[in-house]
Amino acid sequence: MTERVVLAYSGGLDTSVAIGWIAEQTGAEVVACAIDVGQGGEDLDTIRKRALECGAVEAVVVDAKDEFADGYCLPALATNALYMERYPLVSALSRPLIVKHLVGAARQHGASVVAHGCTGKGNDQVRFEVGVGALAPDLKVLAPVRDFAWTREKAIAYAEQHGLPIDVSKKSPFSIDQNVWGRAVETGFLEDLWNAPTEDVYDYTQDPAVAREADEVVVTFEAGRPVALDGKPVTMLEAIQQLNARAGAQGVGRLDLVEDRLVGIKSREVYEAPGAIALITAHQELENVTVERDLARFKRQVEQRWTELVYDGLWFSPLKRALDSFVDASQEQVSGDIRMTLHGGRAVVSGRRSAASLYDFNLATYDEGDVFDQSLARGFVELWGLPSKIAAKRDLGKS
Amino acid sequence: MTERVVLAYSGGLDTSVAIGWIAEQTGAEVVACAIDVGQGGEDLDTIRKRALECGAVEAVVVDAKDEFADGYCLPALATNALYMERYPLVSALSRPLIVKHLVGAARQHGASVVAHGCTGKGNDQVRFEVGVGALAPDLKVLAPVRDFAWTREKAIAYAEQHGLPIDVSKKSPFSIDQNVWGRAVETGFLEDLWNAPTEDVYDYTQDPAVAREADEVVVTFEAGRPVALDGKPVTMLEAIQQLNARAGAQGVGRLDLVEDRLVGIKSREVYEAPGAIALITAHQELENVTVERDLARFKRQVEQRWTELVYDGLWFSPLKRALDSFVDASQEQVSGDIRMTLHGGRAVVSGRRSAASLYDFNLATYDEGDVFDQSLARGFVELWGLPSKIAAKRDLGKS
Amino acid sequence: MTERVVLAYSGGLDTSVAIGWIAEQTGAEVVACAIDVGQGGEDLDTIRKRALECGAVEAVVVDAKDEFADGYCLPALATNALYMERYPLVSALSRPLIVKHLVGAARQHGASVVAHGCTGKGNDQVRFEVGVGALAPDLKVLAPVRDFAWTREKAIAYAEQHGLPIDVSKKSPFSIDQNVWGRAVETGFLEDLWNAPTEDVYDYTQDPAVAREADEVVVTFEAGRPVALDGKPVTMLEAIQQLNARAGAQGVGRLDLVEDRLVGIKSREVYEAPGAIALITAHQELENVTVERDLARFKRQVEQRWTELVYDGLWFSPLKRALDSFVDASQEQVSGDIRMTLHGGRAVVSGRRSAASLYDFNLATYDEGDVFDQSLARGFVELWGLPSKIAAKRDLGKS
Amino acid sequence: MTERVVLAYSGGLDTSVAIGWIAEQTGAEVVACAIDVGQGGEDLDTIRKRALECGAVEAVVVDAKDEFADGYCLPALATNALYMERYPLVSALSRPLIVKHLVGAARQHGASVVAHGCTGKGNDQVRFEVGVGALAPDLKVLAPVRDFAWTREKAIAYAEQHGLPIDVSKKSPFSIDQNVWGRAVETGFLEDLWNAPTEDVYDYTQDPAVAREADEVVVTFEAGRPVALDGKPVTMLEAIQQLNARAGAQGVGRLDLVEDRLVGIKSREVYEAPGAIALITAHQELENVTVERDLARFKRQVEQRWTELVYDGLWFSPLKRALDSFVDASQEQVSGDIRMTLHGGRAVVSGRRSAASLYDFNLATYDEGDVFDQSLARGFVELWGLPSKIAAKRDLGKS
Repeated sequence: MTERVVLAYSGGLDTSVAIGWIAEQTGAEVVACAIDVGQGGEDLDTIRKRALECGAVEAVVVDAKDEFADGYCLPALATNALYMERYPLVSALSRPLIVKHLVGAARQHGASVVAHGCTGKGNDQVRFEVGVGALAPDLKVLAPVRDFAWTREKAIAYAEQHGLPIDVSKKSPFSIDQNVWGRAVETGFLEDLWNAPTEDVYDYTQDPAVAREADEVVVTFEAGRPVALDGKPVTMLEAIQQLNARAGAQGVGRLDLVEDRLVGIKSREVYEAPGAIALITAHQELENVTVERDLARFKRQVEQRWTELVYDGLWFSPLKRALDSFVDASQEQVSGDIRMTLHGGRAVVSGRRSAASLYDFNLATYDEGDVFDQSLARGFVELWGLPSKIAAKRDLGKS
Repeated sequence: MTERVVLAYSGGLDTSVAIGWIAEQTGAEVVACAIDVGQGGEDLDTIRKRALECGAVEAVVVDAKDEFADGYCLPALATNALYMERYPLVSALSRPLIVKHLVGAARQHGASVVAHGCTGKGNDQVRFEVGVGALAPDLKVLAPVRDFAWTREKAIAYAEQHGLPIDVSKKSPFSIDQNVWGRAVETGFLEDLWNAPTEDVYDYTQDPAVAREADEVVVTFEAGRPVALDGKPVTMLEAIQQLNARAGAQGVGRLDLVEDRLVGIKSREVYEAPGAIALITAHQELENVTVERDLARFKRQVEQRWTELVYDGLWFSPLKRALDSFVDASQEQVSGDIRMTLHGGRAVVSGRRSAASLYDFNLATYDEGDVFDQSLARGFVELWGLPSKIAAKRDLGKS
Repeated sequence: MTERVVLAYSGGLDTSVAIGWIAEQTGAEVVACAIDVGQGGEDLDTIRKRALECGAVEAVVVDAKDEFADGYCLPALATNALYMERYPLVSALSRPLIVKHLVGAARQHGASVVAHGCTGKGNDQVRFEVGVGALAPDLKVLAPVRDFAWTREKAIAYAEQHGLPIDVSKKSPFSIDQNVWGRAVETGFLEDLWNAPTEDVYDYTQDPAVAREADEVVVTFEAGRPVALDGKPVTMLEAIQQLNARAGAQGVGRLDLVEDRLVGIKSREVYEAPGAIALITAHQELENVTVERDLARFKRQVEQRWTELVYDGLWFSPLKRALDSFVDASQEQVSGDIRMTLHGGRAVVSGRRSAASLYDFNLATYDEGDVFDQSLARGFVELWGLPSKIAAKRDLGKS
Repeated sequence: MTERVVLAYSGGLDTSVAIGWIAEQTGAEVVACAIDVGQGGEDLDTIRKRALECGAVEAVVVDAKDEFADGYCLPALATNALYMERYPLVSALSRPLIVKHLVGAARQHGASVVAHGCTGKGNDQVRFEVGVGALAPDLKVLAPVRDFAWTREKAIAYAEQHGLPIDVSKKSPFSIDQNVWGRAVETGFLEDLWNAPTEDVYDYTQDPAVAREADEVVVTFEAGRPVALDGKPVTMLEAIQQLNARAGAQGVGRLDLVEDRLVGIKSREVYEAPGAIALITAHQELENVTVERDLARFKRQVEQRWTELVYDGLWFSPLKRALDSFVDASQEQVSGDIRMTLHGGRAVVSGRRSAASLYDFNLATYDEGDVFDQSLARGFVELWGLPSKIAAKRDLGKS
């Protein structure tokens, strides 16, 4: 029986060429698998047909947009996941979902190998391969671009020689990855750290510097999940899509940073994630209102570790699952409304209300109605500072 | 010999009245002590004279602006100190400096008591009293507003009755504290969490929504310290002041959040800190370029703990000093230039260059000149994912 | 209707006297509530009768030993809870359970106040009062020993004067608290840090220096819970009790340390906890075998925080509950056998076997059967060290 | 000019053979470099001569015992470094020192390559190669055992064929690494996790189960460094050596655990480290007496991270250096005497005294002399528990 390889298929030049190339080099049959995580572009049926025309024995296409929003973006929102306090894990979130479907296709179509088109200096190879190892440790992985130095030039030559149905003339100056949670842009002139991004780098967001009317939105959360915008019920996917449109129109969510890759190098990355940034901004402030202080403080450490793990390709690791349990427990009371102004590149919270609020007007107010018993403070302050005071007596040379 | 009390003196109604009141109630002589940390308002000489007219036996005034910038704002910048990831510790930074001078005045003028005008439900009482305990554990503390329920109404009556030289008619609807690092506003209609701040709340910043030309600035750092703006040398104080003006003119640095106070309640706080936010933004990105990954990751935990400690009044604690040693060591290589656009309420980094950069173009580039050895990746990825893979074999019920 | 007070009742002098005293001082009816957490001593019926003879209108007695073992000791075992890496939280675990029953009794008997006999410089007052606040924020708390300076001398005089059925002649030189998880001893000559404990300090453990035969035990765990000793099924309570006897007979579990109390002071504490220490030792090693590395590393931080929280009286806090979710998730695979030698004050693991083991002989062995692919190592090592190497190039002044 | 290779030389079979083999395979000249870190065995001169007889062009031998104790063991003691809370980093500490001398020899003798004899599945390859990369990023590394599958059988054949002056008949059933800080044993029947170690596994320690007289020792520390034993001044090396003898004679410091290796597998390790365990036990308790609570709590996190870094081969990393600064700051007041009983496999602290003690008898005592102001407690407890209480009001559905 002929061996089968499931190939992560995008419909583009590299992976279209890979179908035939893998078949030639390995003698295996290639099953192409394309996953829609909201990256836009061609419809799945077009992609499916192209895969077959390029020589795939099977072509699996999956609309996974809702699954991505619910199972991957929502946990990232609950965790306020911002790698290096900035980057909302756009590509890092989609990779485990894609891996899950690649493994599913391998099981369904009897494949023993999974192939991807990542290079050897990025994070995505790690996310693909560690993910496959964690879901299907028996499957082998093929990474032709990395392990056999497959280049764009060779791909073009191969496509032309074999008459593949691909337009090889289009070449972006950038390397781009996008999904409904955001868009990542790198390489090109951005590799010079002193160069600012130009407007043509962006696609999800408008120029924030252009004068326009502000947009105001009320996001309603239930247990950490956005369930309505301006009072109209939304799915997680709809919440992201609608805020991508509305926050994107105001230039919200552009990010430009030097980033620490797992493989040990620093790289320059530009992102745009209008919906993600708007949602995280709202979610953080609702947590400020509804989450108890000590829980909030420790959750920041959990958030950092969760984010590093996911960035580093360990979505399916035991630690990630245990951290999820913590985060789930923290979200029980994160319910309420956040009013936000989207304008000039900023998502600014202007109001919050919640039946689960821990803000107690009567304890907080300095006006009439104050019920805070100030006589408690003296004892608290004295014992709070006692360890420092005892140390001071020693360190100042007194008894 | 008559006992002496050093009073933290602002020149305003409450502390002016407190001079006479403390003298009457305790029979002690009052030494007024006013510290300029860049809060603006009246000059120190005017304040000094008023203190004496109100009955102080001595009036100590100190221009501590440079000391505050160098000894308190600079460590906060090195630590990227943002409480709850938002608030740059404006008041929390000035309190230990004021305590230091109060204690100094007590030693100089033979006082055995330090008095402050804080209420019993805020953080500042903790910062004052824990600070005094840590610098001078033998001194007693008097907090008449808290411990004797001193109110504004009583203060006005006392001032009028004794003909004190204070204008009692002015009453801000807000409670305000400000210094060169920023400005804090609370109470009034802001105590309703659904109310957005109005423009009259702000003083350090212009409305970011008004159309205006962007401002571009290059900040030069040496070992974590800003040493030049647009190539012109500045002291730390000048860096803050000039960026307060330039970033403030662009509406940068407005913050509005629900905050966890040390005394256990949540409060609504509005801040503006244009210079602080611009400097921290630049400093964080320069660290992204110059600080090694593992150090950067752990430093985020140190930053959170340092910030909580300082917010919680423990500036002079042994842990704070040990964390300072860590932060100092982390800043050795944080040198270089950050170019930033100030506009529309945002400080956006657009370029970075540094002789201490860890970004290596030849390792990062996907173009010609790439020296990254991709053959190393396969082994790395495999061993990186091995613990997850071994766990998966068990958890998936296979061997 | 007369107000009612639920009093935490031990049957001893102080709380027996408190029944009448509270009634006299407050005019309230006193409901005595005694909880058996395995402290030994008199039986519950004797204690119940004494409470009524001392004037209680109701006397509630509860055998909570199994509830304590399952709901309080077991989570502590799952967390390997050792405060300051030494003390297994003996008293800190029983307090929340007692609070729960006090609150239950208050609800059942219509009380509006809960009273306890703790002093003002220990941790237990915090655990009682914060616990009551978290379970029944409407209840008031009365702490006569602390707030009204109730002393032992006054208690003896009151007991003699009122003819209470208490033997006032017995006076331990130590202050002792004990339950099935362990025993805490303080004060007396132990307050001098240079004094070693004498044998009379101990009750749960024999002198480890005496020569005797070693005892070997196999503890079987399922999902973190001990379910059998030497193959015989046990409840959690039985596991603790049997190991208290067997490990105690070998002198295991004596602890002597200077401890940081929540109220800001250091105190000298001596503990003995033979069953707890034996179980934690076994549990830690089973985790070494069955828990993935990154999960194990982060769990140590969770363990520390959980332990501090419980020590600091925050058993019922939101953070504690969220940490429990993490710990629960971590225990899923902690199943298997640990063989341990109990001898000479030490519990030493000598064997482990588990169907959930992550130890893979074929990956670990240096002998025949080795399947570890050493060719993967070079790439791993190179990329693992790349950030340090890049930093070194900069820091050593080379390129 | 002929290329030169510096080889980490032990004097044993594998590295003796490697001298000739490397010369043959690469055409390079081999410089042998042997470092004495207290591993005992043959004297350095014998080793030096053997290296030359085996074909080395130069043989560098270094007595680095004091350097190892002062520069590597002492920081580990200050950090209470116990990997997985058990293993005192025996081998992990010596590797960076050896690397430093290898690099020094390479510079001195004009070598461009460093060679080591580690396998590809252990931690030491990482420590060597990452260390070389961090000290001399221009040097290449050769790992013949790993990269060319060099085996013991091939080594014996080569030695016999070339008449090398090595006794090839001796073969320990174990793989052993030892230095003055401890001794590590693995492989053999220990690879079965259910097997207990037998007495022949141990060399630094006597059987703790044998009856013998206890030994009592007083260790004096200054700023975290042991400076005297029983009042007699010692160097760090002497402190370790003398306690290795005295604690070893009592069976102190045997460890047996399943350990998480950096390369992703679990392995069974047996260690003995009598001096290290005795010193760490004493040091921890002196810290309990002299280090302020918050500093002690955060230091535990630093200790864990420091230990993981060093275990993972990152001794020369930027994070390690910054953590050292924190630890150094924490040790300033760690001065005083600890009295310890060494007996039956246990090092038990029985007394502590220190001029830098933070234990205040008058605050801690329950007897006469008590100066703790218990009236402060009520306010402290109430505000300490306020966040939990406010959350409880919400979570219990009340207001």
